[in-house]
Amino acid sequence: MNDAHHRTRCRVIYADTDAGGVVYHATYLRYCEIGRSELMRGIGLVYQHIEEQGIILPVTECRLRFKAPARYDDMITVDTHVGSLTGFTCRFNYRIEREQADQPKPTLLVKGFTVHAAITKAGRLIRIPESIYTPLHRLCQATDNSSQTGT
Amino acid sequence: MNDAHHRTRCRVIYADTDAGGVVYHATYLRYCEIGRSELMRGIGLVYQHIEEQGIILPVTECRLRFKAPARYDDMITVDTHVGSLTGFTCRFNYRIEREQADQPKPTLLVKGFTVHAAITKAGRLIRIPESIYTPLHRLCQATDNSSQTGT
Amino acid sequence: MNDAHHRTRCRVIYADTDAGGVVYHATYLRYCEIGRSELMRGIGLVYQHIEEQGIILPVTECRLRFKAPARYDDMITVDTHVGSLTGFTCRFNYRIEREQADQPKPTLLVKGFTVHAAITKAGRLIRIPESIYTPLHRLCQATDNSSQTGT
Amino acid sequence: MNDAHHRTRCRVIYADTDAGGVVYHATYLRYCEIGRSELMRGIGLVYQHIEEQGIILPVTECRLRFKAPARYDDMITVDTHVGSLTGFTCRFNYRIEREQADQPKPTLLVKGFTVHAAITKAGRLIRIPESIYTPLHRLCQATDNSSQTGT
Repeated sequence: MNDAHHRTRCRVIYADTDAGGVVYHATYLRYCEIGRSELMRGIGLVYQHIEEQGIILPVTECRLRFKAPARYDDMITVDTHVGSLTGFTCRFNYRIEREQADQPKPTLLVKGFTVHAAITKAGRLIRIPESIYTPLHRLCQATDNSSQTGT
Repeated sequence: MNDAHHRTRCRVIYADTDAGGVVYHATYLRYCEIGRSELMRGIGLVYQHIEEQGIILPVTECRLRFKAPARYDDMITVDTHVGSLTGFTCRFNYRIEREQADQPKPTLLVKGFTVHAAITKAGRLIRIPESIYTPLHRLCQATDNSSQTGT
Repeated sequence: MNDAHHRTRCRVIYADTDAGGVVYHATYLRYCEIGRSELMRGIGLVYQHIEEQGIILPVTECRLRFKAPARYDDMITVDTHVGSLTGFTCRFNYRIEREQADQPKPTLLVKGFTVHAAITKAGRLIRIPESIYTPLHRLCQATDNSSQTGT
Repeated sequence: MNDAHHRTRCRVIYADTDAGGVVYHATYLRYCEIGRSELMRGIGLVYQHIEEQGIILPVTECRLRFKAPARYDDMITVDTHVGSLTGFTCRFNYRIEREQADQPKPTLLVKGFTVHAAITKAGRLIRIPESIYTPLHRLCQATDNSSQTGT
């Protein structure tokens, strides 16, 4: 874990769960959104400001693997980092975990990613603007470096 | 039941339920939205067209009373009618019921209403435009008449 | 404001909003749930423990009045307090507000309440058990006192 | 298109959309659930009955690619078929499309899949029981045959 990873905590509420007694699978995409927006806020990228520039960063792809269920009232952690970045797309990787007082290591619940493209409000695909690309790229490099040194 | 009442059927899915094994209370507002939009479509009021006129009909108040729970896979019926209509607000009344093959009468699940005002996209309160008021008023009268004759 | 009022902050995410550009009306019931469960946690009533006793506290009624819209990325505050308490029902009152750096007073967005009854897992209505009633009653009295002294 | 494909229609409601003016990405997993449960109902597999056998078929993986946005009031079609089936997992494939009166071919909105495993209520992984496997396998073969003949 390092500066390139953003960690946010969420409390599971009833609204997040389903009749199976666990968190509904689509709800994890909410948690990913929370992780992603807090990561971006942390590097000065407030989504609202991005939109004011007339740019939207919609999800073009998502993939989640469900390893263990979260339940009502669980406190979970969303670990988010920039997985990759090109001129046109940005991929965020997520690890959603549950920390428990009586266990030394957190339990991995969900692993996955979302891919985002930059488009204008009219729906035209554009290069990710410099003002967004640069801070994301800095994070991306931090991830690479930390991977190389094995931390 | 008469022409003034619109009835729509919905199937309860897992996403609608919570860990209590029943439909999450806020989900019934989804069912009300479905009932209301189908009632409006039935009298030629497509919400999208209303919005194209620069008008929004947001919910200014809602009240629901929960009598019995709906469960996963239940087929429920949303009965919607115009409860009252003034120059500035429209109230829709809802009865959400579950029909069951082995029971002569449907079970009442939820009873409630939503109140809507007309506002411009800039957020200014306006009179409900003629094109929306007239068809709603016609329905409202049909409700009154049917009440008087006891049907 | 006093000890009887619990205040929780929530950040509005995209998932909470609708195509009208504002928070979808049913989403405020999520915020109420967050406020209510944090108030209860604050007085030692963890909902999960209540359920382990075989008791559920479902919503039997809800009412919300929408005064002003919350938007994406807004930081909102849910103020929750016990509005009334009988042997069989508990009512929670909510005020959802938005604080803004450039304004001296927060903007009231939504005002409302939920009423809860105690039922067994089999669905039978019961008196609210002592272990739940007592801490809620203590809060309720605190609310009354503060009202009398005008704070 | 053939017997192996199940097609369900859904109307997009306000609750499904977000402040970007389009359907929120996680909402498509709701549509997939609708498609999947209707496909299963069509071959006599009512999820509720499966659960009564003490078996759950949770989502262990999902992947969606977003090609074009659905908007409020769109009528969309969810095309679902069994993509693959092993003793332990079943994969459903989805194509979500929008039909428009003025266009000869529907627009592809979302393509994706969900993978499901069979587990007991206690959470233990088991082989998919015969009563579920057989009807799914029949559908799977129908898909293969239709692919071979190019329809």
